[in-house]
Amino acid sequence: MPREIKIGLLLPQRAWCQAAQKFTGGIGTKLCALLYGDAEKPMETGAKEDPGSEEKRPACTCNTKPCSCPKADVNYAFLHSTDLLPACHGEVATMSFLQDVVDILLQYVAKSFDRSTKVIDFHYPNELLQEYNWELADQPQTLEEILLNCRTTLKYAIKTGHPRYFNQLSTGLDMVGLAADWLTSAANTNMFTYEIAPVFVLLEYVTLRKMREMIGWPGGCGDGIFSPGGAISNMYAMLIARFKMFPEVKEKGMAAIPRLVAFTSEHSHFSVKKGAAALGIGTDSVVLIRCDERGKMIPSDLERRILEAKQKGFVPFLVSATAGTTVYGAFDPLIAIADICKKYKIWMHVDAAWGGGLLMSRKHKWKLNGVERANSVTWNPHKMMGVPLQCSALLVREEGLMQSCNQMHASYLFQQDKHYDLSYDTGDKALQCGRHVDVFKLWLMWRAKGTIGFEAQVDKCLELAEYLYNKIKNREGYEMVFDGKPQHTNVCFWYIPPTLRDMEDNEERMNRLMKVAPLIKARMMEYGTTMVSYQPLGDKVNFFRMVISNPAASHQDIDFLIEEIERLGQDL
Amino acid sequence: MPREIKIGLLLPQRAWCQAAQKFTGGIGTKLCALLYGDAEKPMETGAKEDPGSEEKRPACTCNTKPCSCPKADVNYAFLHSTDLLPACHGEVATMSFLQDVVDILLQYVAKSFDRSTKVIDFHYPNELLQEYNWELADQPQTLEEILLNCRTTLKYAIKTGHPRYFNQLSTGLDMVGLAADWLTSAANTNMFTYEIAPVFVLLEYVTLRKMREMIGWPGGCGDGIFSPGGAISNMYAMLIARFKMFPEVKEKGMAAIPRLVAFTSEHSHFSVKKGAAALGIGTDSVVLIRCDERGKMIPSDLERRILEAKQKGFVPFLVSATAGTTVYGAFDPLIAIADICKKYKIWMHVDAAWGGGLLMSRKHKWKLNGVERANSVTWNPHKMMGVPLQCSALLVREEGLMQSCNQMHASYLFQQDKHYDLSYDTGDKALQCGRHVDVFKLWLMWRAKGTIGFEAQVDKCLELAEYLYNKIKNREGYEMVFDGKPQHTNVCFWYIPPTLRDMEDNEERMNRLMKVAPLIKARMMEYGTTMVSYQPLGDKVNFFRMVISNPAASHQDIDFLIEEIERLGQDL
Repeated sequence: MPREIKIGLLLPQRAWCQAAQKFTGGIGTKLCALLYGDAEKPMETGAKEDPGSEEKRPACTCNTKPCSCPKADVNYAFLHSTDLLPACHGEVATMSFLQDVVDILLQYVAKSFDRSTKVIDFHYPNELLQEYNWELADQPQTLEEILLNCRTTLKYAIKTGHPRYFNQLSTGLDMVGLAADWLTSAANTNMFTYEIAPVFVLLEYVTLRKMREMIGWPGGCGDGIFSPGGAISNMYAMLIARFKMFPEVKEKGMAAIPRLVAFTSEHSHFSVKKGAAALGIGTDSVVLIRCDERGKMIPSDLERRILEAKQKGFVPFLVSATAGTTVYGAFDPLIAIADICKKYKIWMHVDAAWGGGLLMSRKHKWKLNGVERANSVTWNPHKMMGVPLQCSALLVREEGLMQSCNQMHASYLFQQDKHYDLSYDTGDKALQCGRHVDVFKLWLMWRAKGTIGFEAQVDKCLELAEYLYNKIKNREGYEMVFDGKPQHTNVCFWYIPPTLRDMEDNEERMNRLMKVAPLIKARMMEYGTTMVSYQPLGDKVNFFRMVISNPAASHQDIDFLIEEIERLGQDL
Repeated sequence: MPREIKIGLLLPQRAWCQAAQKFTGGIGTKLCALLYGDAEKPMETGAKEDPGSEEKRPACTCNTKPCSCPKADVNYAFLHSTDLLPACHGEVATMSFLQDVVDILLQYVAKSFDRSTKVIDFHYPNELLQEYNWELADQPQTLEEILLNCRTTLKYAIKTGHPRYFNQLSTGLDMVGLAADWLTSAANTNMFTYEIAPVFVLLEYVTLRKMREMIGWPGGCGDGIFSPGGAISNMYAMLIARFKMFPEVKEKGMAAIPRLVAFTSEHSHFSVKKGAAALGIGTDSVVLIRCDERGKMIPSDLERRILEAKQKGFVPFLVSATAGTTVYGAFDPLIAIADICKKYKIWMHVDAAWGGGLLMSRKHKWKLNGVERANSVTWNPHKMMGVPLQCSALLVREEGLMQSCNQMHASYLFQQDKHYDLSYDTGDKALQCGRHVDVFKLWLMWRAKGTIGFEAQVDKCLELAEYLYNKIKNREGYEMVFDGKPQHTNVCFWYIPPTLRDMEDNEERMNRLMKVAPLIKARMMEYGTTMVSYQPLGDKVNFFRMVISNPAASHQDIDFLIEEIERLGQDL
């Protein structure tokens, strides 16, 4: 039996609680009380250790805040946000309040990994709106109500760190990443200048250089930025590619330059089209290149379509290859694409938002061979590397281009007569002015795991995907959407309920099969046991797309998923 | 003497520590030890309460992790991230580690409000790179090293919540906002669908509606989204305005439509030009309208330039008015601009990123009169309302337009056969695919303060700006950049060192004056006592731009700033 099953399932609660007593600061005791309620709370724990109990405390009758009345601790029913720092003498109430919030969060974190808890306590939107009063009012709420708001919000949240949450490319909850995100919030600053984010700006510099090294650019040279998500990173690549070819577009707009055409595969992410629409290029100028049965771009079709565009007098300016497509997890043949881009002098972008994580693995990075020839790469550590949301990098091989493309020289921000090296004021590289600190969680996780730790995590998820594939490829009631071992952790399959198994492959079967995945998914959410995504694609009706990016998942969770699909789908 | 001065300056440390002992969970004790070191730590506190002391613990010699060796608590020198959850039996180490990180953060938070601490411990980039080994390696670090990384990062961070940090439009550290951001990190989800962010999606709905009510749109009707910053919000407005007039641009691009022209004031934010460059409109097609001496757009000049553009055959499609300019804090005359937009059928956008907060104040909201006639409004609660970074909203009067403009119908994400009301899947309104949860901190702060709490905060900051203005307008050695009481909290002034006071107003004086603010600023940062921004503007050489958005600031901090400028600048 895998080791992981012991957590929260086999370890007796009381034994766990007793073990927990040995550790610092009463945290074990507190957690134990939080998780298992008063019944399981060891005798030596007084009521004041239970942060959930403030409602039960006798009301305080003295009128100083925070009061020193002996019968009350911090009584949140009498406190408001105005009693917290920077209020005079606000330190104690503040520390107590933040600590109680943290206790609520620690409880949530521990439950997230507990397989005996639900992934989701699902409510329909209208139900959820009525379940609680979420409205904003003129008058303030007490801190007691604020703590209740926090508990209620988490009660209905999806446990995205749960070992059985497989719904998105971003899953899991990394403890060092969480700690780093908490620190980022407390530091509450902005990436645009070294002046106000000295450490974070340096860490961005160090981290982006390391990522470029992993891509294979000599010495980690080049440029880059953390942006708010892969779609924006892809849009940046398109923006920079256009600027590189026609710098006058910045001042003169699209009216001054020839009609541009971009190329990407029919399985690529929709953000390529979104970017083209936004940048005034137009979605009609994004040519979708055909894919093989595994979802990889066919290079000969790319070349054919480039020639076609040129014959029409259009200017091919960008090929966006995908390393890890969203649905199939396919890797486009980057070397062949790089050859074509070189031949026709076209900017080669690689959208490795999903597949970039494989660069951390000596076993799997060959799937991105050729990425080192790209002009730009999107890589989202918040996906395969499990960094908390949001953490997406755009890496650019040519230095200085991002700055020339986007800079507007705002003199109130990027003063030229500052007393330090201005090359660290990176804000003018971005379309954003203010920019959230997204780097610290990745940097701290990398320090904590080392490259070998990320490698182990990636290898484990890929091994689990292979386990799933091997388990279902010949199993009764399953059909694979494409043949062969998955290249990434995407495993795409139909579950065929017993009544459909002997049916002829006709329209009626299709119509019934397309309803199977949505129905099973709806039931999964209502039971709250697991979550996995489904979608149609091209002429293929709704199928499950299983992905694994959470290192908390184990073989037994894969087994559970299969059992659950069969339990929920057998009567369909 | 104002009440605020007592914190950390006059209250004796020991008395504070004694008071702190009365409260729950040893937090007071712990904080006290953290802040003032062992010397000030009350006798009843054992060494194990000091989370900074794990390096001093005797090394544990048993080989189970986390060990139960009686002489050690959780010994981080022997633990790695792989010992944390989801590791088997990882709960205790995890809770202990997260708690120790929180202790470091609570210490930082408390120090942020302590006027006896530095705003910044400044180091030049090269120094800071050498001060510590920030590099990323193959091998993991221990949790002890990870905790040290956290401490070191905060040691060199800017205390953006410090009452004497005036450097940006976003200052302050709100305790409820911080708690909410911590919860957001623990929930670690994505705004694109109701499926995976049910509560946050509903809270975005509730909060945006409330913001539209504050703008004055009947019943709070309309549309909107939280975006990664004001620059992106402004770009969205431009994108939607273009789509509204020429929906074919989405497919056909700019080649298919006439040449567009946008109008904004010469004092507006640079993001309007940045957006035009990105969207393929071109910066030359952004016409900068003249401002009066207070930095407000001159409506007659706007109308003249619109007519000029039309005569050239161009199509005016957007006027971006500013409510609260970045440098002067000026409010454009929105009613007059709305009349012109109506007359010429042009989309009216109001960039109220900075000024939007004044809508919370019954006393000051008249400055935005006319905003209710806008088609779209940018409003950044992370600025004047003190919400942690990043929190920016774009509000749009017409419902459905954002969706039509940006949607690409990705079937893997926005399945049409889900079992709940799909109107809550808002992801296709945005250019982003994944989208960070930015709403919860604003929502929770609004619950905690009520509208009247935000109002009090805004009114207080504006009152402080007036106090500063009254204090320096006739003071020797100061010249105001523009006459009259500030409309926002921006107070713009030159400090004239004694040697320049009797000089003729010639080029030499100019050349010397332009160096004064940068030199004083550099000294401020080196001493670490306070931070305030400066910049040139048009023909005006470097001047200080004081802004106040931190409710922790008080009259004495304003007094301190003036004294500090004089102390650091008198010899220049």
